Amino acid sequence: MSRLKLYLAPGTCALAVHIALHEAQADHELALVNFAATQQRSPEYLAINPKGRVPALVTERGVLTETPALLLYVAQTFAAANLAPLDDLFALARMQEFNSYMASTVHINHAHRPRASRWADEPEAIAGMQRKVAQNMTENFRYIEATYLQDGPWVLGQRYSVADGYLYTVGDWLASDGVDIRDFPLVFAHRERVLQRPAVQRALATAQLPKTA
Amino acid sequence: MSRLKLYLAPGTCALAVHIALHEAQADHELALVNFAATQQRSPEYLAINPKGRVPALVTERGVLTETPALLLYVAQTFAAANLAPLDDLFALARMQEFNSYMASTVHINHAHRPRASRWADEPEAIAGMQRKVAQNMTENFRYIEATYLQDGPWVLGQRYSVADGYLYTVGDWLASDGVDIRDFPLVFAHRERVLQRPAVQRALATAQLPKTA
Repeated sequence: MSRLKLYLAPGTCALAVHIALHEAQADHELALVNFAATQQRSPEYLAINPKGRVPALVTERGVLTETPALLLYVAQTFAAANLAPLDDLFALARMQEFNSYMASTVHINHAHRPRASRWADEPEAIAGMQRKVAQNMTENFRYIEATYLQDGPWVLGQRYSVADGYLYTVGDWLASDGVDIRDFPLVFAHRERVLQRPAVQRALATAQLPKTA
Repeated sequence: MSRLKLYLAPGTCALAVHIALHEAQADHELALVNFAATQQRSPEYLAINPKGRVPALVTERGVLTETPALLLYVAQTFAAANLAPLDDLFALARMQEFNSYMASTVHINHAHRPRASRWADEPEAIAGMQRKVAQNMTENFRYIEATYLQDGPWVLGQRYSVADGYLYTVGDWLASDGVDIRDFPLVFAHRERVLQRPAVQRALATAQLPKTA
């Protein structure tokens, strides 16, 4: 297949896909979208992803978006890298369940701090949403700590999967949300474990994404 | 495999999974969760799904949650029903992209009306969120109309998939959000098409879910 192209921005969930591409040793190039200059709203970028968000993955058959979809796509396309339990429908559903929870609950709760204006216009409503972010993120990570990470070392237990890079990515936002990741010892240990992976280090170095210690 | 058990409540996204089970002709039973009596917060239900939400699908290997994960699980488990393009990774990623968008953008935007208290405590913040729901849902359905439904007759073009039952399910919330589905002719035609499917009619009849005409 032709080279994949990943549109991403530092500090976004696109990192999860970027990590997956490195884990898969997939031939790919990066295109940084400059959020500070609201490049995601430029006509050029909207032609690639009309939703004006990252990640977007350009494949030989067209552009794909949405992190959980991209993670499964990378895992299936580069099946030899063993990034998902493709031969076990229940385990795969568990991975999809985790990724969907990250996208539609945890990421959303986080987004109510930097992106609250998506859901209300009034400054006092936006402030109200922002006040609740730390509480919601704490509840979500308490849940992750008490469920998926109980067996360990990975989200799916003994096997690493694309879900682990996703958890690392979203966990990296906790500090900015006013939550101390060390309040969740299993999440913190998972984070350290992910950071030791060569593919993750390559992803973090390549795109000069902020690696907060 | 042993009989599946789907926990659901009328008017929720669990309908998408219920439709998929009927399309798959999967042996299953239903368990209605009484939201009016906040049964989703009862110790009994929290033992099944600690997140206190529906859907939850009890399988012989454990409980699975999150609509996009369940839809793929049903499609893969009952592959003969042809509810997803399992043999085409790009088309499957497109389906996953759609389902993820429904879960993490459209459902979320809708939820800011009935469930705004998830994201703020102050009544004025909640009212601010509710005021923006119709605008956000309109934007989302305009996008669906302009993209996925352009080819038709189904979300993936010529082939019906679990994504279609999901679109029907979420589209059914538009009226309550103050949006007229007839403003989106392709979505409206899609809805009528879905309603003609025997499996959908069986799902709607079985659980006595409100079928608003």
